[in-house]
Amino acid sequence: MSENLNQRIVLAARPQGLPVPGDFRLEETPVPQPGAGEVLMETLFLSLDPYMRGRMGLVKSYAQPVAIGGVMVGGTVSKVVQSRHPDWQEGDIAVAYAGWQRFALSDGSGLRRLDPAAPLSAALGALGMPGFTAYAGLRNIGKPKPGETVAVAAATGPVGSAVGQIARIHGARAVGITTGAHKLAFARDELGFDAVVDHKAPDFTAQLAAACPQGIDVYFENVGGTVWDGVFPLLNPFARVPVCGLIAQYNHPGEPQPGPDRLAVTMREILSRSLTLRGFVMTEFWDSQQDDFLRDATAWAADGRLRWREDIVQGLENAPEAFIGLLQGRNFGKLVVQLGAA
Amino acid sequence: MSENLNQRIVLAARPQGLPVPGDFRLEETPVPQPGAGEVLMETLFLSLDPYMRGRMGLVKSYAQPVAIGGVMVGGTVSKVVQSRHPDWQEGDIAVAYAGWQRFALSDGSGLRRLDPAAPLSAALGALGMPGFTAYAGLRNIGKPKPGETVAVAAATGPVGSAVGQIARIHGARAVGITTGAHKLAFARDELGFDAVVDHKAPDFTAQLAAACPQGIDVYFENVGGTVWDGVFPLLNPFARVPVCGLIAQYNHPGEPQPGPDRLAVTMREILSRSLTLRGFVMTEFWDSQQDDFLRDATAWAADGRLRWREDIVQGLENAPEAFIGLLQGRNFGKLVVQLGAA
Repeated sequence: MSENLNQRIVLAARPQGLPVPGDFRLEETPVPQPGAGEVLMETLFLSLDPYMRGRMGLVKSYAQPVAIGGVMVGGTVSKVVQSRHPDWQEGDIAVAYAGWQRFALSDGSGLRRLDPAAPLSAALGALGMPGFTAYAGLRNIGKPKPGETVAVAAATGPVGSAVGQIARIHGARAVGITTGAHKLAFARDELGFDAVVDHKAPDFTAQLAAACPQGIDVYFENVGGTVWDGVFPLLNPFARVPVCGLIAQYNHPGEPQPGPDRLAVTMREILSRSLTLRGFVMTEFWDSQQDDFLRDATAWAADGRLRWREDIVQGLENAPEAFIGLLQGRNFGKLVVQLGAA
Repeated sequence: MSENLNQRIVLAARPQGLPVPGDFRLEETPVPQPGAGEVLMETLFLSLDPYMRGRMGLVKSYAQPVAIGGVMVGGTVSKVVQSRHPDWQEGDIAVAYAGWQRFALSDGSGLRRLDPAAPLSAALGALGMPGFTAYAGLRNIGKPKPGETVAVAAATGPVGSAVGQIARIHGARAVGITTGAHKLAFARDELGFDAVVDHKAPDFTAQLAAACPQGIDVYFENVGGTVWDGVFPLLNPFARVPVCGLIAQYNHPGEPQPGPDRLAVTMREILSRSLTLRGFVMTEFWDSQQDDFLRDATAWAADGRLRWREDIVQGLENAPEAFIGLLQGRNFGKLVVQLGAA
């Protein structure tokens, strides 16, 4: 592959259920040339996140689907390699939304400058969109109070791990749900969850209840599926449920689910326990709260209260397989593809 | 029946589905005598409300069930007929929670003094608990903005009619859902709903969509059941759903519902449209907001912006049949039982 060619991964076909490698296609195209007011950016790190599964389908969501033949979308840490924009110089580093490709143009909108000395890939994780999802969901919806119990699944992932740690910073008790001995141990020992529960254990529901003797006041919903069934009976009166992701459902968005229909009983419990369910996408809060977040999260990272683990895959060509693994929970920590070095 | 006997209606049996007259029993017992610090109150008006169905069953709800043989609970407008309490005198009128009976004792707690010249029964409707349910649900959860669309069912009932009128006071557009030509006309012509829709029309969903060309920003959920199915697809991004009642489900609280299971798709839409579902019972807000409510609602009633219709049944012995009719939507306006005159 030539340095003079852009490499990009496009959507080849809309997946049926779990995506397969054939749903993606690696293409080589000429490197685009920046026009007046534009910069050419080279991708250093590409973020892989569950929401991308939604963009591969046609089911209406909070964003437009990727077109067949279109470049897969995604957040990136990118380096300016050529600039015709007054605010940007060659060598500058920025968070961008360049997608699954090596080179992309930008007119500067949506770029956020990064300190080249900072941990760059973290700007896609704990110090970026997933971290902000945790921060904003707790600040605006979950609102944990000291002594309350906050539960979250995918507890070693970038959102879940930040939820647990920020909950503890608020004085709440954090209960992490994940699976596998290594992830459970990491959540407890490295991330500081007060209790951890294996959602694949046969007695998951009983384990979760034992881990939440005072019930659950905030359930940060980022997975859906069977975890919800264990959590729901434990929700305390006035519990808050920020809903930011439903990865367990992403592969089967349109299919009718077998009965019984749990909607009526769910609504009854929402009423009788004065529950709050609130869906959100972090973009709702980004403009007004990003400064607070970047200040707080940077400080917490510096003093060790906000930690994270990354799962870094080398090479754009390995992004599809890594993404498919993400949807199956095979990653361990924030999944990032490294394309180049700063 | 003697003036010297108390009459009261007790729960004879827990209903299976819709209550039947045999689930209630009228008893006569001695009129109780007030002790030191107590008052004897005579019931003038008894409020009948859907939540009482919940109290007849054993399914866990936000309040304790009525015991078998216990007096049915309920809000009342009562007159002090004997007082050994320093704050109350014979002839004083109060809102109380004396239940389905002619006489009751009180130590003064929970009594709210009424102006004897005011419309007394309205203190059980638009100017009481149902009106406050509408007020608090909109103020704290629905938060309608000018130009937004607020939809509510049971639109001629005490909660629904207040929701529509208060929504319009906030500058929102009010869409009322009910059934029957008289109720539809009353909602439109007397209560001022901007549009009305018959939920029993074969094309209800299409009618509702036509009545909400800009979608629905606030759906005040007080009925559940099939109305929800029509409303849900119309909810706009960031729509708010205060959930205060589910009358359509009250008769079948524990039964599994036939599939498909709509929970997953509901959660997905909560996420993709950033919806808020929030259950509440008006008592949550009563202590902190009752003064505001009584001030506002009294002023709105005086200037004609808050109107109501009452369905007054004479005689305690007719309360069970009237209550059974309420659960079937047979009443037209706030259902109140009149026991005596002030």
